[in-house]
Amino acid sequence: MVKVGILGAAGYTGGELIRLLINHPQAEIVFANSESNAGNKVYDVHEGLMGDTELEFTSEMPFDQVDVVFFCFGHGKSEAFLKEHNIPANVKIIDMAQDFRIKGNHDYVYGLPEIHKEEIAKCQHLANPGCFATCIQLGLLPLAKAGLLTNDIAVNAITGSTGAGQKPSATTHFSWRDNNFSVYKLFTHQHLHEICQTLNELKPAEAPHVVDTLDEGYEAKGITVDFIPYRGDFARGIFCTEVVTLNACPVESDITALYKSFYEEAAFTHYSDKALDLKQVVNTNKGLVHVEVFGKKVVITSMIDNLLKGAVGQAVQNMNIMFGLDEKAGLNLKASAF
Amino acid sequence: MVKVGILGAAGYTGGELIRLLINHPQAEIVFANSESNAGNKVYDVHEGLMGDTELEFTSEMPFDQVDVVFFCFGHGKSEAFLKEHNIPANVKIIDMAQDFRIKGNHDYVYGLPEIHKEEIAKCQHLANPGCFATCIQLGLLPLAKAGLLTNDIAVNAITGSTGAGQKPSATTHFSWRDNNFSVYKLFTHQHLHEICQTLNELKPAEAPHVVDTLDEGYEAKGITVDFIPYRGDFARGIFCTEVVTLNACPVESDITALYKSFYEEAAFTHYSDKALDLKQVVNTNKGLVHVEVFGKKVVITSMIDNLLKGAVGQAVQNMNIMFGLDEKAGLNLKASAF
Amino acid sequence: MVKVGILGAAGYTGGELIRLLINHPQAEIVFANSESNAGNKVYDVHEGLMGDTELEFTSEMPFDQVDVVFFCFGHGKSEAFLKEHNIPANVKIIDMAQDFRIKGNHDYVYGLPEIHKEEIAKCQHLANPGCFATCIQLGLLPLAKAGLLTNDIAVNAITGSTGAGQKPSATTHFSWRDNNFSVYKLFTHQHLHEICQTLNELKPAEAPHVVDTLDEGYEAKGITVDFIPYRGDFARGIFCTEVVTLNACPVESDITALYKSFYEEAAFTHYSDKALDLKQVVNTNKGLVHVEVFGKKVVITSMIDNLLKGAVGQAVQNMNIMFGLDEKAGLNLKASAF
Amino acid sequence: MVKVGILGAAGYTGGELIRLLINHPQAEIVFANSESNAGNKVYDVHEGLMGDTELEFTSEMPFDQVDVVFFCFGHGKSEAFLKEHNIPANVKIIDMAQDFRIKGNHDYVYGLPEIHKEEIAKCQHLANPGCFATCIQLGLLPLAKAGLLTNDIAVNAITGSTGAGQKPSATTHFSWRDNNFSVYKLFTHQHLHEICQTLNELKPAEAPHVVDTLDEGYEAKGITVDFIPYRGDFARGIFCTEVVTLNACPVESDITALYKSFYEEAAFTHYSDKALDLKQVVNTNKGLVHVEVFGKKVVITSMIDNLLKGAVGQAVQNMNIMFGLDEKAGLNLKASAF
Repeated sequence: MVKVGILGAAGYTGGELIRLLINHPQAEIVFANSESNAGNKVYDVHEGLMGDTELEFTSEMPFDQVDVVFFCFGHGKSEAFLKEHNIPANVKIIDMAQDFRIKGNHDYVYGLPEIHKEEIAKCQHLANPGCFATCIQLGLLPLAKAGLLTNDIAVNAITGSTGAGQKPSATTHFSWRDNNFSVYKLFTHQHLHEICQTLNELKPAEAPHVVDTLDEGYEAKGITVDFIPYRGDFARGIFCTEVVTLNACPVESDITALYKSFYEEAAFTHYSDKALDLKQVVNTNKGLVHVEVFGKKVVITSMIDNLLKGAVGQAVQNMNIMFGLDEKAGLNLKASAF
Repeated sequence: MVKVGILGAAGYTGGELIRLLINHPQAEIVFANSESNAGNKVYDVHEGLMGDTELEFTSEMPFDQVDVVFFCFGHGKSEAFLKEHNIPANVKIIDMAQDFRIKGNHDYVYGLPEIHKEEIAKCQHLANPGCFATCIQLGLLPLAKAGLLTNDIAVNAITGSTGAGQKPSATTHFSWRDNNFSVYKLFTHQHLHEICQTLNELKPAEAPHVVDTLDEGYEAKGITVDFIPYRGDFARGIFCTEVVTLNACPVESDITALYKSFYEEAAFTHYSDKALDLKQVVNTNKGLVHVEVFGKKVVITSMIDNLLKGAVGQAVQNMNIMFGLDEKAGLNLKASAF
Repeated sequence: MVKVGILGAAGYTGGELIRLLINHPQAEIVFANSESNAGNKVYDVHEGLMGDTELEFTSEMPFDQVDVVFFCFGHGKSEAFLKEHNIPANVKIIDMAQDFRIKGNHDYVYGLPEIHKEEIAKCQHLANPGCFATCIQLGLLPLAKAGLLTNDIAVNAITGSTGAGQKPSATTHFSWRDNNFSVYKLFTHQHLHEICQTLNELKPAEAPHVVDTLDEGYEAKGITVDFIPYRGDFARGIFCTEVVTLNACPVESDITALYKSFYEEAAFTHYSDKALDLKQVVNTNKGLVHVEVFGKKVVITSMIDNLLKGAVGQAVQNMNIMFGLDEKAGLNLKASAF
Repeated sequence: MVKVGILGAAGYTGGELIRLLINHPQAEIVFANSESNAGNKVYDVHEGLMGDTELEFTSEMPFDQVDVVFFCFGHGKSEAFLKEHNIPANVKIIDMAQDFRIKGNHDYVYGLPEIHKEEIAKCQHLANPGCFATCIQLGLLPLAKAGLLTNDIAVNAITGSTGAGQKPSATTHFSWRDNNFSVYKLFTHQHLHEICQTLNELKPAEAPHVVDTLDEGYEAKGITVDFIPYRGDFARGIFCTEVVTLNACPVESDITALYKSFYEEAAFTHYSDKALDLKQVVNTNKGLVHVEVFGKKVVITSMIDNLLKGAVGQAVQNMNIMFGLDEKAGLNLKASAF
């Protein structure tokens, strides 16, 4: 049994992680840390856990009793936490935040199993990808690897309200969001960093560099991912379209073959011959991808559950790989469907 | 033209009042007071007003320039405000809060036009009824007046999220409320006070006293209104069922005739021969009522838009009556329907 | 491994049953029958199954290869089917429809595990309870058994749209149902039959008979369950309140102790000390119950997922009991929560 | 008073037209035709009309008693109707369908008041624009006229369920659509025809021709509008983003000045300096537009209510212009906001 500690256990991702791990056949939760909820039952905070577990939040962090720690903090807090606390070297870390997703002066592996399975299996520290970043990358990876990303890429992605976290705000107020729709962070969403990092890592040398529109003077430096994020009036999921303009009109069956082949071995990401809808992935750890071709344009739809494949589902998938378990252990979830 | 001042103009009811008054043919807004938003356009705060008005919030309160002031404060602030400010005697007041709904040491008239039209026409100060209170009373008034409320009354009423106001909270978080359902303030909702006041006022002397379940020792004092409020996952409206047990099995047509006759002259409340659904009243100032009989039980469904007939729509209706205008002026609203 | 056949596999309950059984550790689907979809993948019809199974619908019914058959027909078709088809005597039948819920000239056991576990364990043929019926009974059983149902019972229950089945209709049109609310089958819902049957079966001899308001002349024959069903604007779940008037004011802690004790051994039904909301049970097989007392009135809230505890989740629970498996096998579901 | 006849009065647009016209100060409905509903009250079919009008559907079509007829048929039926019926030459026609939107062997004027006000004022027959077409054109018109549409245009537009009409179907089933998201008619939506017609009409001669991706061999013939339509899980409204790539990086203030100037005189279309959300237009006849610039890319958000500015609201606006009335008569609607 993999012994697990959870930091930030009272937030949305913390709750979803607990929901997964209490049914995981080869993992057990040793502690679920939350200063402000210490002593309360986890089911007092997290929907759907009553009757499943009597686990309580704790203010303690007994790192010596665990094999792995999940950081379910908000962004920017992981690095600060590590400066103030000493986690034993043998304890693996899976960080849900964006602090270590960009390569730098650290040993965190970017945990996208579709392309990094071997590094993940060997790593001690893992940076779990962002939700939008996961969904968009699943749509673009096959074309990137094939060197077909040669012009600006148009990405439109709609997220559910759980992507905005647990803290109530004006844009998550039911009265406002219900039956509403809006955009935010046009062309400047922070997930562009990790998306561009992957695309450049994966592309053949001769393919043009992908720059993100957050960089100053980006226009002169390469092709761009033009990402428009939308706030949808649903709770779970990310639905994404990516339009890639090739240099010449492709044969549609070549493109679909490329995608099928790329995801053939993937545990949770599947290519669909038919058009998709978001609820096919809700409450599962799946990524689904579908492609159509119009002239030079390849139009991809990709979709995930933002809290699962876009967060803790993928984190548990990564944990499974890191500990040599079946990649799907604890992740054969019944889709909610409705 | 009736000259209007609005206090608390940046809240939900303030916004809805502005949406009504900018199209009112015989009223004009002189000031819309909001300390924290002073200088901002009202359309910066309130959806749907861009292009309709360039009105700005002000921190001033020029009472000498208006005929009537609407108090759109939260509950409990009206009385405090009046102690600290001097409103000229000739300026009428319409208070949206519950501060003066219960009769006492004040001259506020309870503004339910279906039963108090004459007093409203003559009054200087008006207490506008609560949203649940309006909807529930519309369901019960004909039976109360006929002396048929002789046993405990079962009331179930579902409210939209706008009933909880503008401030974000855990129970108005979209992620929580979307596709969710819950109860609150079981048998203890504060609107019971005004409901019971009206029912006792209206009933024949021989009919039993109606006590509210908030009163200590209520069981020994009369019949009760057993009110269960629910939080619905929609934004606007209140849908209510009232089950009244008579002393004997009535003839259904007698009961429907009673209701039709009672609301024959009402400007906005109508009896329907067919079963109803909530969206028939959404974004209108209407109350709709339908009745069916089973044995000794009379089952009423009543429904209103909580922000209109349950708040500022009724307030404008009251203003129209107070100033001798057509009762429906400014209130012939296109239903949103969808 | 229990070998399973499914009839009516292309409907809502059929799909949900497949979603459950593909992850059940001790059951396998031998055939999923649907005439009109024969040859299609189940994931072409049912959301969320892509990547989980390559199972196809079949027009065949090889009863000799299965241990149990689930009838997922619409109501009224089970009896007709059995007249036209010969199911071997050793094959168990679990019928989702209402055809055999009322005792009569048949050997079907009413499958409510909270009270009939022993009969279920021994039975060959099982009638799975209705969704509303399950939820309402969970709220009333402890009081019924204690002989406390001595006056008319007020039941209000709100159902999600999946309760109306897969066939599109006016009242399941998104444009109509979104943000809408309505009642239907006031006092006359067909589930009253099975509810009353159970309550009378469970009550002490001296407690009054419970009649349903569908019976002619019911007023003269006993106490009634006054059931108002509502159409909610959510997809999954039933939220119910039951108000029971006792003959005297009880001590609240006595009532809660009664409930806790009654459900102590139940695998999926739990008493909660705190107020509940619907999403605590959505996408799980749980029933949750909470009680508050006001004077002589006991107010219960009970809730289930209509497709799981209200349909196929309970059916699988019954299958587990019938085959001597762990009652919870295949039913440790991750709550969708959002 | 303009005397109005309505054909197809029992559908969604027919209902919305009735909701508008009963409050129109200078128009009156002479007949509302619906064969299948003849004799029924319009409020029996259309939400929100109870108490507002006792109008009944009729199977008759007394064209000699009206000044104008609205065709609220489904697409393709207008032309057939005109072949079989004789409408007097003096009766104006406003057709909601797409039958006459493309110029050809007919005298119908394309009724987009933002650019065709003079032709509309003089016309006898009017083709009312499509909902997506209106919203997308409002986003692109200023750039088209300025000759800045010189590269392919990326359009993403999300529509509410009322866009799919009144007939229940799989993709408007509440259980499916609630909290769901999907695309349809990728790059091939039929509104591309009218959009391209307008853009080519408006563009300077030297700007490239706009072709639609429905045309065979379109890649070789000019620039394209790459339109991805999405099904949103809300009832009313269209939210659209348009990304236009200029030949050089513009100054943002030049672009916003272009838009402000273009819509300065428009009765219902407004430029907003701030980011927008859909509910700002819901239940109004407004179009709202906002622009941001990133490098060479101009990102426009445009939005309308699909049933109003996208259908009958614009039709009434056109009627007002055709009859010399105030363009806004009957269209000063209270936004529903929530």
